[in-house]
Amino acid sequence: MQEFDLIARYFAPLATAPEAFGLKDDAAIIRTRHGFDLVITTDQVAQGTDFFADDPPDAIAKKALRVNLSDLAAKGAKPEYYLLNLALPRSVREEWLAEFAHGLSEDQRQFGISLLGGDTSATEGPLSISITAMGFVPEGRMVKRSGAKVGDAVYVTGTIGDSGGGLALLRGEANDFGEADRAYLVNRYRLPHPPATFGTTLYDIAHAGVDVSDGLIADLGHLASASGVGIVVRGEQVPLSPALKALWGTDTLARAVVGGDDYQIAFTAPSGLSGPFTCIGQVQAGEGVSLRMNDEAVVIPQPGYRHF
Amino acid sequence: MQEFDLIARYFAPLATAPEAFGLKDDAAIIRTRHGFDLVITTDQVAQGTDFFADDPPDAIAKKALRVNLSDLAAKGAKPEYYLLNLALPRSVREEWLAEFAHGLSEDQRQFGISLLGGDTSATEGPLSISITAMGFVPEGRMVKRSGAKVGDAVYVTGTIGDSGGGLALLRGEANDFGEADRAYLVNRYRLPHPPATFGTTLYDIAHAGVDVSDGLIADLGHLASASGVGIVVRGEQVPLSPALKALWGTDTLARAVVGGDDYQIAFTAPSGLSGPFTCIGQVQAGEGVSLRMNDEAVVIPQPGYRHF
Repeated sequence: MQEFDLIARYFAPLATAPEAFGLKDDAAIIRTRHGFDLVITTDQVAQGTDFFADDPPDAIAKKALRVNLSDLAAKGAKPEYYLLNLALPRSVREEWLAEFAHGLSEDQRQFGISLLGGDTSATEGPLSISITAMGFVPEGRMVKRSGAKVGDAVYVTGTIGDSGGGLALLRGEANDFGEADRAYLVNRYRLPHPPATFGTTLYDIAHAGVDVSDGLIADLGHLASASGVGIVVRGEQVPLSPALKALWGTDTLARAVVGGDDYQIAFTAPSGLSGPFTCIGQVQAGEGVSLRMNDEAVVIPQPGYRHF
Repeated sequence: MQEFDLIARYFAPLATAPEAFGLKDDAAIIRTRHGFDLVITTDQVAQGTDFFADDPPDAIAKKALRVNLSDLAAKGAKPEYYLLNLALPRSVREEWLAEFAHGLSEDQRQFGISLLGGDTSATEGPLSISITAMGFVPEGRMVKRSGAKVGDAVYVTGTIGDSGGGLALLRGEANDFGEADRAYLVNRYRLPHPPATFGTTLYDIAHAGVDVSDGLIADLGHLASASGVGIVVRGEQVPLSPALKALWGTDTLARAVVGGDDYQIAFTAPSGLSGPFTCIGQVQAGEGVSLRMNDEAVVIPQPGYRHF
């Protein structure tokens, strides 16, 4: 199949926004939206690092997209458009591409977004997908990493560590683990569930926010560093799923807070808030992130995922 | 070296726009610019396909950037920002990265642009670089592929085929070729010279435009198809460099018009214009692109580069 046929068949139908010109031009446009800033982020995923070759193609597509939507949500932005760069092994089959495009199509409907453009090329290496996502936030209201204030509470959406648990299972840990819990955790690794619609609530309440992708402690560390503050995480308050506790037992907290791929949002805001999130700690004067369990310090040997 | 050190040392200094937050946040913003549309495009390049492993790192960086600036110029946009996704083999050396970043820095100054964000990861495959570039054009004035009118003249900037000649030389063709001509052509392959500043003139004169990257005939074919017109290219008017003619002799025209990687601009506009471009043909009723040499039809077997 030729590049242009492939684009026409599988990707042009995803370019629902008129600003994409049906993927038939060299570029797309984004029109000025008065009173809003455009928020833009980009992340790439690759076979062998972020997903496995035999993962379902629609899940691979959704993961590539959602790791970007997670960044937009953490910044308070409503997602709107994305660009897709695909480096495909020459051996890729049409069935694979059809399922991949179907996954994108489902997520476009779920999140209300449109493909805007992209580039498809053949590679001698592993399949890789690079997505740039864009959304809007009221002017000057992007939730930065740098706004945390001493006295803020620290909150996190969803549960932490499930994706790391799923990856551990895929790597052969605990082969006799219960089927339902296994399916739950593996699915959390394959398919993140970022709180994409929560972003538009976030800019009204948060002083600072970050996407939890490298690991909870590591990402809170980025936030603390950008804000010039310290953070104490109360281990007993960190939300952990029953499935993860069944897998890791007494090690659950220590492993969950250094896993990656959560794609939840951690943010700081005034204390006492309630909503689809959990209070897990406080901002204080100082620097760095410390983890305490029932008020005793817990040592964290390796705070997050490293590529190199 | 760790990912964050690498970003802090080599890439944060390139994020000169305040909207990039020094690459210390999850996302960047682009502020509303009243009366302008944002034009956005993305292209990836990979070792073995678009450059060679032993090409100078600064030239690789500039090529990755310029193939995108070429698209912006063809749309009439003034470039402003770019995002950089790097998939680096684990064996990459710091000297290589330093030279790569230096190349980006030089081009940022030359073209007046800033790095806005990106993502760096390790790959088991070849080095690949995915860039998203953005610029502004007055509202509603993007030069599309679809605006060509019957009776327009067809123009092209620069010379055509030099990059294809350089690639042929790097692949071992004509080993005894003159050193100066060889250096000129190889440099045109390694380092495109898109007419980036010409874009801001283009939207005032052009009815339709396209970036010449797949090959002159193929890209004019995209333009003709999008506009619902036919195009006749007068072979004797196609601008060919003396070095390319020295390399390919009587085959020069036939090979030049199907080579890729020119990164010049082809556009249609009223006839009789003069400027930093050459008139190479006419738009007429019909479809497709025909090449004529002294008014005789020339057969084009393979109109452009195909990835698959």
